[in-house]
Amino acid sequence: MITLNTPIDMHLHLREGKMLRDVIPYTYNQFAAAVVMPNLVPPVDNKERLESYRDEILQNSENFTPLMNVFMREYTKEELEDLKNDIFAIKLYPAGITTNSEAGVKSIENVYPVLEIMQELGIPLSVHGETNGFVLDREREFAVVYEKLARDFPNLKIIMEHISTYNLVDLLDKHDNLYATVTLHHLLLTLDDLIGGALNPHNFCKPVVKTPKDRDALQEIVRSGHKKVMFGSDSAPHSIENKLKGAAGLFSAPVILPALAEFFDGDNDTFQKFISDNARENFDLNIPEKEVVLVEEEYIAPQMVGEVKPMFAGKRFSYSVKNF
Amino acid sequence: MITLNTPIDMHLHLREGKMLRDVIPYTYNQFAAAVVMPNLVPPVDNKERLESYRDEILQNSENFTPLMNVFMREYTKEELEDLKNDIFAIKLYPAGITTNSEAGVKSIENVYPVLEIMQELGIPLSVHGETNGFVLDREREFAVVYEKLARDFPNLKIIMEHISTYNLVDLLDKHDNLYATVTLHHLLLTLDDLIGGALNPHNFCKPVVKTPKDRDALQEIVRSGHKKVMFGSDSAPHSIENKLKGAAGLFSAPVILPALAEFFDGDNDTFQKFISDNARENFDLNIPEKEVVLVEEEYIAPQMVGEVKPMFAGKRFSYSVKNF
Repeated sequence: MITLNTPIDMHLHLREGKMLRDVIPYTYNQFAAAVVMPNLVPPVDNKERLESYRDEILQNSENFTPLMNVFMREYTKEELEDLKNDIFAIKLYPAGITTNSEAGVKSIENVYPVLEIMQELGIPLSVHGETNGFVLDREREFAVVYEKLARDFPNLKIIMEHISTYNLVDLLDKHDNLYATVTLHHLLLTLDDLIGGALNPHNFCKPVVKTPKDRDALQEIVRSGHKKVMFGSDSAPHSIENKLKGAAGLFSAPVILPALAEFFDGDNDTFQKFISDNARENFDLNIPEKEVVLVEEEYIAPQMVGEVKPMFAGKRFSYSVKNF
Repeated sequence: MITLNTPIDMHLHLREGKMLRDVIPYTYNQFAAAVVMPNLVPPVDNKERLESYRDEILQNSENFTPLMNVFMREYTKEELEDLKNDIFAIKLYPAGITTNSEAGVKSIENVYPVLEIMQELGIPLSVHGETNGFVLDREREFAVVYEKLARDFPNLKIIMEHISTYNLVDLLDKHDNLYATVTLHHLLLTLDDLIGGALNPHNFCKPVVKTPKDRDALQEIVRSGHKKVMFGSDSAPHSIENKLKGAAGLFSAPVILPALAEFFDGDNDTFQKFISDNARENFDLNIPEKEVVLVEEEYIAPQMVGEVKPMFAGKRFSYSVKNF
């Protein structure tokens, strides 16, 4: 039996409407809280939209704290002061790189005034860090942007989201204000799972899964319990129809805790840090405590959740979430 | 206007039945001859099957020479003597070759007696050179196997099929008896075309398209007119239904000459070498001469050919094949 205290998913896509209602039980039954990404159409980038989205999430969940992100734009100081207590962070997508990110900022310097205000108000910055270069180089190339941001805003907490390459791991110890989330799929999969056999569109995501060397570096830093490394699933449901049309994203929510229990293989202290304590300490999160228990009973990942095919569909795990 | 003398596709999949009838006009209208791969179900690996397959090809083509390959198995000397005049080469698709492993090479050593006979009879060896390692390393890792084969059978002509990595280019000048085919898609595409935007299953093939560095190395060696480098399309039609299920292969036949005309951009001497002369000289091919003319008229690649979506479907080219 593994007892987790207040697990938090630091990077989650919940969508809206029917899809939200289909997928959200897999999160609120496994997590006390989750950072909810704002890339809806239109994006969540004002207080009214934020409140209605948060209401939708609360109406469809139990005993669960959504930590809301808003989409980066050229906010005024008044807007941010008004949003400050309602949001966890502001999400920056480099333009045109990921799902529904077309409204993302064209150049990071355009939002420097916003970053100044965020730094002053203590609002963290969440970044999808990829250039628009060659697909396997995009994240590595973005490292210089992370370093520039870290230096230019030394008191701004910057989260390197869903890191997927070994190059970024080194930045964590180089800059006090850089943090990282790691997904389940980047921790476990490589390009072999996407293009190594038959093409598997269900393992397609951005950033793309990478090499064994990258995966091994992520595993090493996660197993080390590094304080600045936090779990963020980037669970991103798409209908199976859209996946077959090439949409990027894995819906990992149904398998997160059983898969991580196998990954940590008894090292429950590190599991607890990765799934909760690091995030709570790094960001002084004040979330109602919630215990989630994993028992040693077989769990079979569902084949479908609504119109969505989950990661590891049909796979058997040796742990299941109690009372779920 | 570009006049090509006796163009040859040194690596082609024609399938059987309706699909063969759908796709073969794109080859016999652009090429004088093609090396036809034997990976049917069951494979072409005996004289009877070879003759019936060749008959099917001849019945459905005009003014076209199929150069037949048979699938590697433990042939006897009598079988090979009987096949010799009917085949161009024997195709080896090594199974279970692991990273740099002696066991992997040993699986090739099982066919050493056949390679001895082939060397004696002057039958070339055609190889799909990939280990079963990490998908991006498979071809590079196979280089040691190519080198061992080249050394162990100095008089056996060995074709490294559809080379996709810069590492193999160097082997051409290191071993007299190693040759290479290059496809249109490895010459023009990278992983960006497969996984750089939305996932594009139509650009999925094995070996997978690789990095800009790899593509640039292939472009350089092809533009150099290197005598041992020959065009082989590996055009491999699959129904659109099977492509969406992850089948590997691009159906490039409809766009080969228009796309290569643009690639060579006026260097028609090198175009002629790549598309015909190198192959004819390397293998003393005696094929009835056939002139194929490209005129400067717009050509739009078809959206569908039967149930197959071609490479570059819908793309406009500035050259078209005359009288086709």
